[in-house]
This record gives sequence, structure tokens and C-alpha cells, in this order.
Amino acid sequence: MPSGEDNLIDRFFRPLASDPGAFNLRDDAAAITPPAGTDLVLTTDAVIEGVHFFPGDPAQAIAKKALRANLSDLAAKGAEPLGFLLTLAMPKSIDEEWVAAFADGLAADIEAFDCALLGGDTDATPGLLSVSITAFGTVPHGKMMRRAGAKAGDAIVVSGTIGDAALGLALRRDPKLAKSAKLSAGEEAYLLERYLVPQPRTTLAKALRAHAHAAMDISDGLAGDLAKLAMVSGISAEVEADKLPLSPAARKLLEHDPKLIETICTGGDDYEILAAISRDAFPAFEKAARESRVVLTEIGSAAGGEGIAIKGSNGQALSFKRPSFSHF
Amino acid sequence: MPSGEDNLIDRFFRPLASDPGAFNLRDDAAAITPPAGTDLVLTTDAVIEGVHFFPGDPAQAIAKKALRANLSDLAAKGAEPLGFLLTLAMPKSIDEEWVAAFADGLAADIEAFDCALLGGDTDATPGLLSVSITAFGTVPHGKMMRRAGAKAGDAIVVSGTIGDAALGLALRRDPKLAKSAKLSAGEEAYLLERYLVPQPRTTLAKALRAHAHAAMDISDGLAGDLAKLAMVSGISAEVEADKLPLSPAARKLLEHDPKLIETICTGGDDYEILAAISRDAFPAFEKAARESRVVLTEIGSAAGGEGIAIKGSNGQALSFKRPSFSHF
Repeated sequence: MPSGEDNLIDRFFRPLASDPGAFNLRDDAAAITPPAGTDLVLTTDAVIEGVHFFPGDPAQAIAKKALRANLSDLAAKGAEPLGFLLTLAMPKSIDEEWVAAFADGLAADIEAFDCALLGGDTDATPGLLSVSITAFGTVPHGKMMRRAGAKAGDAIVVSGTIGDAALGLALRRDPKLAKSAKLSAGEEAYLLERYLVPQPRTTLAKALRAHAHAAMDISDGLAGDLAKLAMVSGISAEVEADKLPLSPAARKLLEHDPKLIETICTGGDDYEILAAISRDAFPAFEKAARESRVVLTEIGSAAGGEGIAIKGSNGQALSFKRPSFSHF
Repeated sequence: MPSGEDNLIDRFFRPLASDPGAFNLRDDAAAITPPAGTDLVLTTDAVIEGVHFFPGDPAQAIAKKALRANLSDLAAKGAEPLGFLLTLAMPKSIDEEWVAAFADGLAADIEAFDCALLGGDTDATPGLLSVSITAFGTVPHGKMMRRAGAKAGDAIVVSGTIGDAALGLALRRDPKLAKSAKLSAGEEAYLLERYLVPQPRTTLAKALRAHAHAAMDISDGLAGDLAKLAMVSGISAEVEADKLPLSPAARKLLEHDPKLIETICTGGDDYEILAAISRDAFPAFEKAARESRVVLTEIGSAAGGEGIAIKGSNGQALSFKRPSFSHF
């Protein structure tokens, strides 16, 4: 659909691509000149209808979720956003109104996070709607934050609150849950929003580079992601479930059904930062985070050995059903 | 499917990611240090089941088509390949054997085109198989070949042969066509292969930078792509259909059914280079191309004004049915 495609790009995406390296989206490729002395950090994340969002979710939110998942990776790697490429696979059911709303959502985040649309690819698909984004950021040469680097004795720290998105998803899957847990309308809306539109911790990038030993973003659930960080760092980690920062809405749901601790620890889509940091550096890190309006919470410690445990208030490690954690 | 995903990445993709910037695929992101004095050229192209390949096509070929479509863009922009990110959306029907074959195809092209796997994202999808690749290349600062830049009086030039892939697709859609056109088994196989596994003209990148005014790769059909190049360059272009370089198999099909000229000119998936070059520079360009074993053919001329025409042997411009060309 060349002419339809060109028309869509002209009307909805060209106005977003003001960076000179985007060549007004009138070329096969974009070009960027990374500042001298920097490395380019590259990340890619896709969101797919029925996997990462529900059919019929607002187009603005889908655009934001796709971009923010990538911005969250950049933040965790200590990188400042530079720009992104967008690949959009659109079923026939997508109309111009949808594309206009999608572009609106994207425009708001391009502005909010100062991350330029550089180019992309649009395709009609007989399959499902999917949005794949590749984002670029910069760090001083050799300074990308790694998952590897955590040391025995480090504090294990997370940003924001954990489990909200997974609980928001649980609310959507079980329409009776909000009522039976006596969530207020505001609490329900908060969790639903946390699922649909994550808040990437981009303002934390510089403080991570300055203070942390290791960091990653929590996208596949705290338990699994902490296990990855521990494994590549060659340490073990122990976390106390009672120390997990929970939103009031999450806390109310957990009191209603204590088994939801598994959803909170393994559900994913948090897009918060998980970091390991020496206890000496923690006060300075926390101060820097507070200045960028991000709350940090120490949830546990790294030690020698391997494996991770999330301990309940009785001191016993929680065990989770999901097969992904069977090998821990 | 974290543990299944990790398992797939471990077994099949980690061995391909030997570049240090890929961090063994054990981090959230990759990092590259573009050589000083260069710009980074960024391009992204996706292939989707039922759109760019048929369900059941060999996994190796799908991997190659996805990567080569991107390498073709880099070549047309005069860029040397540096690396790529891979996003793979896999339906449940995909098994380990398929992934192993896909990785084999990718490994062969990583080696052949010296383009490193830097990272990516794998997702299970309830939808169709799709492969989205973002590729990175380098050019000397400010030297990315542009679509804009063609001048009145330039020769319009293409690499290789035109229309093979579109005719290969026509053979797949009409199983009787090969026989009725009396194609030999070898001719049929050649066209089918040209559809499934394009040949990116990566060796032409340097000569394009040295000699051409404007270039792009032909992925949406010669007619439409030439129109794009002419529009952004602010020129008109006239091509003679009789001058189009055709393979023997394409020529035989065209003699069987002269209406196939439309398929040849508008069908797409050629992944050949379209360039505009001053007539003075053409001999040196052709010599450089021949040294890199790419055949170039002059097919027409650029002039002032706007619009493009592909003229038949009677001197009349061909008119095509596809709506995308209604405005030419």
C-alpha cells in the first residue's frame, strides 16, 4: 500500500520527526552523529496486541507503552535518550482516527522525554497489531550501566513501587477483584494506569552511572529479573517481602488475598529500576534520586554464592509456581 | 515465557553474538562506539508471515530476507554494515528445530556480510510470525547517500536485474504460470530464489558515495521508488522499458505475457540499487561496480520538472493499474 503508507507517514508521523537526522522521513534511513567521547546504547522492545496490551486499548496508551518500555531500558543503563525508530504492523481494522491518536500519544512522549522520532517502517499485516521500537541513548564512553557488577555486601534497591502493573493486569483479567477487595475507584484506576502506561525512570540515569554497581529495569518481574542480575554478577541476593515498596492500592489487594504476593514478585511490567549499590554510596544515591523525584527503597542484600530468595515475614523463602523460577 | 526465552537465547542466539558490545546477550541493551568522524546510519525493516514470505517458507530464508532487506538499505545509503538488533515474534507453532534453522541462516549472513548481532527481543505471539530488524552502518561524517540530490541531466542507473522477485512471487501465486510460459526448472528456481533471498548490493556502498548524486534501494517497485527519488530531488525522470535489465527467466515470462511489464516495474522486493549519477562520472562508477562484481545498467535520464514515466517501445508512457501510481 505505498500511497496509503506515504499518506499516513505524511499526515501523522512527519510532523513528529523534526530531528535533521530523520530527513523528514523522506529517505531509506536516518543518520546520527553520536557526540565525541560517547557510546551509543541500543535497545529494542516490542508490544503486541493480546500480549502486552488488550485489543481496543487506547492508541495513545499503546504508543506510550511501546516507547516507555524502551526508555526504561535506557534509564536502567544510565543512558540519556537520543532517538528511536518505530515499526508499526497494522491490521486492516486500524483506521486514520486510530493512527492520529497513536501519533498524539507518541508526540506527547517525544516532548516529555526529549527522544526524537528518527524513522521507521509501517506494514499492513493480516495478523495482530504490533509496535516495535528501537531506541538509542548515549553514555560517556565505557560507562553503560551493566547487569553484571553487583558485589557481595551491596544493598539491593528498587525505584518506585513494585507489582502495580501486574495487579492492574489481574484486575482486567478478573473484573470482580476490584470490588471484592474493596478498592476505591481511584485505587482501581491507579493500578490499571500503571499497567497501561509505565513511568520510565529516565531522571535516574545519571545517578545510576555515578553511584550504582549494577542495574537493570524490572520488566519480567522482580524475582526473575533479580535472578538474572545475580547470575551475571556472580552473587546471591536475598530480599525481604516485607520491605517491598507497595502502593496503597497494591497493599489493599495483598491484604485481601495474600497469595497475590506471587503476582507482585513475578508479574512483570513494573518498569522500575533494580540496582545493586555499596552501602557507603547509598545515601548519596538516594539524595540524587530524591532530587529527581524518584523514591528508592532498599529491599535486601547481595552476598557470595548464587541464587536468590524472597523471604516472607516468617523468614522462609517464598516459592512461586511459575515454571520460570523452577531453576532458582 | 522467561525461562523458555532464556533457553532459546542461550542455545541459538548467544553463539551468534560475539561482538563485545552485545555483552553475550546478557544485558538489557547493547553498546557501540562509532568510529570517530563517522555518522551512524539507522534503518529498520520487518518481514511478516503472509506479507513478505509464505507460511512454511524455510526458516533460513526468512532470517536472510529479514537481514538482507536492511543490508540493502545500508548499501543504498553508502554505509558499511556494523551490526543489528533482532525482534522475533513467534507463534506457538514455532519449535526448536525452526529456531535452530533460523539461527543457522542468520549465522551464515552475519559471516557473509560482516554484520554483528548486537541484541534483540523475543516474544511469544498469538498472531503471525514476524521478524523485525534494525541495522546500523557507518559512513564518513555527512556522507550518507541521500534520495535527494539527483540533478537534471543525470543518468538513471540500476544494479542487477529488475522484476525477478515480483515474478517469483507471481509464480508462487499462479502454479500454472511456469509451465505455460515454458520456463525451465532452472529458470523457475532462479525467480523463486530471487523472491525469497534477495542479494543486497553491499559491495556498491563505497562507489555510490564516491560517484552518485542520489540513491535508494528498490523495495517497493522501480516505478514507485523512482517517483520517490524524483520527488525529493525535485526532478523528473524518464525510463525506457526496453532498457530495463532483465534476467533470461524474466525475459521469457515477459514474452509469454507482455502485461507482466507491470509486475516487473511495480512488484517490489528487487533489493537492487537505483541511483542518479552525472554522465561524466558514469564510466568511473561502472568500473568500480564491475570490480565489486555488480552489473550496472543505465535505464533513463533525469530532467527538470516533476513526475516520472516509463516509456514503452512505441514511445508512449506505460500506465499501471495499481492505485499507488494514480498520481504520476
